[in-house]
Amino acid sequence: MVVRKLEVFGIPLPEITPGTDLARTIVESANRLGIGIRDGDVIVVTSKVVSKAMGLLVKISDVRPSTKARIIARILGKPAWEVELILRNSKRILGAFPAHMLLKHSTILNYISRDRDRALKVIESDRYLMIVDVGYRVATDAGIDTSNVPSGYVCLPPSDPDRVARGIRDRIRELTGCDVAVILSDTEGSVLRVGSLDIAIGASGIVPVTAKFGESDRFGKSKYGGVDLIADELCATAALLMGQTGESIPVVLIRGLNYERSNLELGRFRVPRGLLLKALMLGILISVVIRFLLAIFSVVDLLRGRW
Amino acid sequence: MVVRKLEVFGIPLPEITPGTDLARTIVESANRLGIGIRDGDVIVVTSKVVSKAMGLLVKISDVRPSTKARIIARILGKPAWEVELILRNSKRILGAFPAHMLLKHSTILNYISRDRDRALKVIESDRYLMIVDVGYRVATDAGIDTSNVPSGYVCLPPSDPDRVARGIRDRIRELTGCDVAVILSDTEGSVLRVGSLDIAIGASGIVPVTAKFGESDRFGKSKYGGVDLIADELCATAALLMGQTGESIPVVLIRGLNYERSNLELGRFRVPRGLLLKALMLGILISVVIRFLLAIFSVVDLLRGRW
Repeated sequence: MVVRKLEVFGIPLPEITPGTDLARTIVESANRLGIGIRDGDVIVVTSKVVSKAMGLLVKISDVRPSTKARIIARILGKPAWEVELILRNSKRILGAFPAHMLLKHSTILNYISRDRDRALKVIESDRYLMIVDVGYRVATDAGIDTSNVPSGYVCLPPSDPDRVARGIRDRIRELTGCDVAVILSDTEGSVLRVGSLDIAIGASGIVPVTAKFGESDRFGKSKYGGVDLIADELCATAALLMGQTGESIPVVLIRGLNYERSNLELGRFRVPRGLLLKALMLGILISVVIRFLLAIFSVVDLLRGRW
Repeated sequence: MVVRKLEVFGIPLPEITPGTDLARTIVESANRLGIGIRDGDVIVVTSKVVSKAMGLLVKISDVRPSTKARIIARILGKPAWEVELILRNSKRILGAFPAHMLLKHSTILNYISRDRDRALKVIESDRYLMIVDVGYRVATDAGIDTSNVPSGYVCLPPSDPDRVARGIRDRIRELTGCDVAVILSDTEGSVLRVGSLDIAIGASGIVPVTAKFGESDRFGKSKYGGVDLIADELCATAALLMGQTGESIPVVLIRGLNYERSNLELGRFRVPRGLLLKALMLGILISVVIRFLLAIFSVVDLLRGRW
């Protein structure tokens, strides 16, 4: 029996500066580790390091917030420079979410941090997350991030991650002759369990979502499901190594995955915003109806029990 | 330099029947593959196989739907037996989501399936997903699932997955002397990109969420983040192998992860439902305010440009 096995390698890179040939750096680093690059490898690159190579660092003191940004910043308890950058880098502002409410809750605060006072300070410095459409996806705070960049600077995400992934993939093929899949990852928040997960924001060389909805299961029945978010699963896998060693692993190579190759862009797999909104509205409406019905049934059951 | 590396092994099991000693079967199967079990391994087990071992299969023809279930089933375009089982296995019905609206959209239908007609039939047979609280988490359709169980049967999820994970972990220690982490996974839907991801529903032996909110980044600044959903990332990793080979890999072993050991239960890391609801309400309110403000600014900008 052949053992189904994946190997997941963390690839540390030297500090990346604007203009770095990222693909070449990845190939050289993989060679130095003795891993090399092979045909069919999947390479997950954190968008942070792409931004650094593209020179997408902004000096915070250079940002002049508009009146609009300053007013919104005041309402949301966010730094004005941050709101200004979010407005500049969004196609549309969808809303805001009171992250501070969840993070400050005693149960949650206890499990997210071992230094309560320091955590509270960070929470209070940035109370709401803005939810915006950046064109290729819905992102909190437009994917703008201050961590792991020099003090006084902030990092903007690449504006066309599919094209960046394609570029890295093409260059790796040029350098090594290997066809690999390249996925750009970013970190996003979750709410059912407070915390973050890495997701895919751009991809090249892989079908990012399996197209098996309705196909037969092992018993021959049509399956409600079969649409696996492969690209996102790969980013979550990469995060296991990226998150561990003081964030000095911006690239993870996954070897052994039997994936379907493709030139499809990840951007194609987005739910149209209007459709999602309509579905959410209908969902809220029907939820109200269902809960009303259930309430009536509870009353009926109660009355039956009494008489 | 030490290479940071994970190994991910798919462990096929023989067909599981009620009463099977799942931990023993896992150990034996790992030994047969030559992988074995080692101290510090993480073992992800799909909840489906746990349900089979616990005898949580229900014969659909034995389910007698109540009037309540039949009315809700009619409204939601779902089978009445399914609604009946969802009602029985939920602590509270939170609402419903029109999954069919997203799935039937031409763009999405194209990418989720290569057999349009078959997919449409499955979509129409179960139009809304019910969103319910099953006690230990919020789940669509109460985690009830018909795939990969014999025709005419349906599979209920275990009611206390943390305890199940603990039981498997203890038994593996008994059999092998190794302390491992055990995580139970289940498949859940995503909406920003239509598809599904595996998430953790129970865990034992691992701190499932890193507690590094506000800690220093590489440049010494306090970080907004650092709360990685490790257990969920591990389930996403396992899904890469579980999803691939016709669903015959219900167990995945991950070796080489440097995780923090613990007896904490995953259930502790849930956001209190009332809190989440309050945060969502406040979020909607503040979103309306922000968008109103932005609309005013647009009008002002327009007038300025005109005069």
